[in-house]
Amino acid sequence: MVMVVPRLQGLASPNSLSFLDKRIATRVLLSNALGSRRLRFSATTRLGWCGDEPLHHHKQQSTALHATTVMSTEDLGAVERAAPVSTPEMEVLLDMLKWDKQGLLVAVAQHVDTGAVLMQGFANRDAVSATLASRRATFYSRSRSSLWTKGETSSNFIHILDVYIDCDRDSIIYLGKPDGPTCHTGAETCYYTSALQLLQGGGAKPLLPTLLSLESTIAQRKAEEITNLAAKPSWTKRLLENPKLLCSKIREEADELCQTLEASEGKARTASEMADVLYHAMVLLAAQDVKLEDVLATLRARFTQSGVEEKNSRLKQV
Amino acid sequence: MVMVVPRLQGLASPNSLSFLDKRIATRVLLSNALGSRRLRFSATTRLGWCGDEPLHHHKQQSTALHATTVMSTEDLGAVERAAPVSTPEMEVLLDMLKWDKQGLLVAVAQHVDTGAVLMQGFANRDAVSATLASRRATFYSRSRSSLWTKGETSSNFIHILDVYIDCDRDSIIYLGKPDGPTCHTGAETCYYTSALQLLQGGGAKPLLPTLLSLESTIAQRKAEEITNLAAKPSWTKRLLENPKLLCSKIREEADELCQTLEASEGKARTASEMADVLYHAMVLLAAQDVKLEDVLATLRARFTQSGVEEKNSRLKQV
Repeated sequence: MVMVVPRLQGLASPNSLSFLDKRIATRVLLSNALGSRRLRFSATTRLGWCGDEPLHHHKQQSTALHATTVMSTEDLGAVERAAPVSTPEMEVLLDMLKWDKQGLLVAVAQHVDTGAVLMQGFANRDAVSATLASRRATFYSRSRSSLWTKGETSSNFIHILDVYIDCDRDSIIYLGKPDGPTCHTGAETCYYTSALQLLQGGGAKPLLPTLLSLESTIAQRKAEEITNLAAKPSWTKRLLENPKLLCSKIREEADELCQTLEASEGKARTASEMADVLYHAMVLLAAQDVKLEDVLATLRARFTQSGVEEKNSRLKQV
Repeated sequence: MVMVVPRLQGLASPNSLSFLDKRIATRVLLSNALGSRRLRFSATTRLGWCGDEPLHHHKQQSTALHATTVMSTEDLGAVERAAPVSTPEMEVLLDMLKWDKQGLLVAVAQHVDTGAVLMQGFANRDAVSATLASRRATFYSRSRSSLWTKGETSSNFIHILDVYIDCDRDSIIYLGKPDGPTCHTGAETCYYTSALQLLQGGGAKPLLPTLLSLESTIAQRKAEEITNLAAKPSWTKRLLENPKLLCSKIREEADELCQTLEASEGKARTASEMADVLYHAMVLLAAQDVKLEDVLATLRARFTQSGVEEKNSRLKQV
């Protein structure tokens, strides 16, 4: 049995996930009620265009995201597409890669600081060359048969710090720092839909990589604290409500972490105390609306120099 | 001009990267010397098989990785391939996904704790269904036209905690915890080759996501300290050599982090002090050979419960 459901385009934003869940749950119940084992979504349910960004979509997007975009002067203006560059070194590198029959390989964009996977597209020789030369993530659009630089019209570029090649040489990672949200929906990453949540309904909690997941949980507790809607006991909420308690815990946990070294308390204890320090310090970040991403960016900027040189340079500033 | 170079299979391990760099640098110089703009690597330079793991490779691998593999009793024995499961909910989910002409989509495996991208393969309906049902990352091998569960013979399974779907519904992330190294070379991830390092020779330093990169830099300083080969000044080395100094810095930085809240010193200062805490605490981890991954796993295990419940349960244990 084939059922055609309405276009889901309007449901694709991260904020409407629970509504999307409900829709799917309803269809599953409907499917069961009808005795059908299969329920097909129409081909019109394609939700977005991040993999292949068609131009008409760019037009819709550029206005909406304009306000949140950090733009340098060179980004202003019309479509800004990175160009491939041919050097002997580049050609050797491109020759090393294993291209499929269409001359493509899979390119995954990853956030250099948080580690979040931002999006996935395909790249041909020119796209990889343009990315390495311009340091802006550039893909090959199969639907438009042309290169496209992520952000070429929205200005949400992904600034590339390195490109990683896998052992098979047929898949690469664009490791970079995005200017703004990568997804056309305004989400930071295109991967915001949890399959387990879809399968299990609203009960399942999507799980991000650990630190991002912890940050999201703490943010949720903070929101509950403000709206006073929560009934569940929460240590995080107590800490958020009581800065004195929070700071005393951070000092205590840092001290206990040091004791693991001073008293040789063993690896398991060290990992546990470090987890305590991280958690409490992240509550302090949330209390001050500081994003982990900004901390990691600070850390990255710092350790690209020798520690001593950096320390000296900071001492001079003081 | 086409040059055939020897098979590079023996050069593919992460430890031999600098040697691989030299080989490529030599070829580039050779290419320039010969006045050739292009230098082709032979089709025999395919380095590995992680995307499609042929069986003969599994045999080579399983012995080598055996010692480092954490195996549960159910993993022991012959090939253990996950099986697809059909339920109405699963079929709705699979119908939502956008499959290419071969019935495939791109599947990226990501480490739940570190955020490292482990490998990339392709998945068909059965592979996604088998992954969700068994909670073990399962792919479709295009070369063997069959399902394969990562680790089915090596026992290095990737235990899935969630599956993320992108906005286009044609790309998914297997978010999981690997039992051991994911790559057939013994590397933790298949993406260990930096394109910038290949292009720029040994001078470029590969950049991992920030915390992993910092961990790697600290580990390098520790190795230099032990072998006494380094001449460059390094604050990290001083901290590693002097536990008293390290602990005093950790307590001091934790105190300064607290002051950002107590004295409302602003977001930039908070991010900076948190970066200091993280860096010094990570030096302490390195001093005790504790991996960040283990800290993050501890943290993940902890915050799946309510903080207060978890705290109470720990208090009972003390």
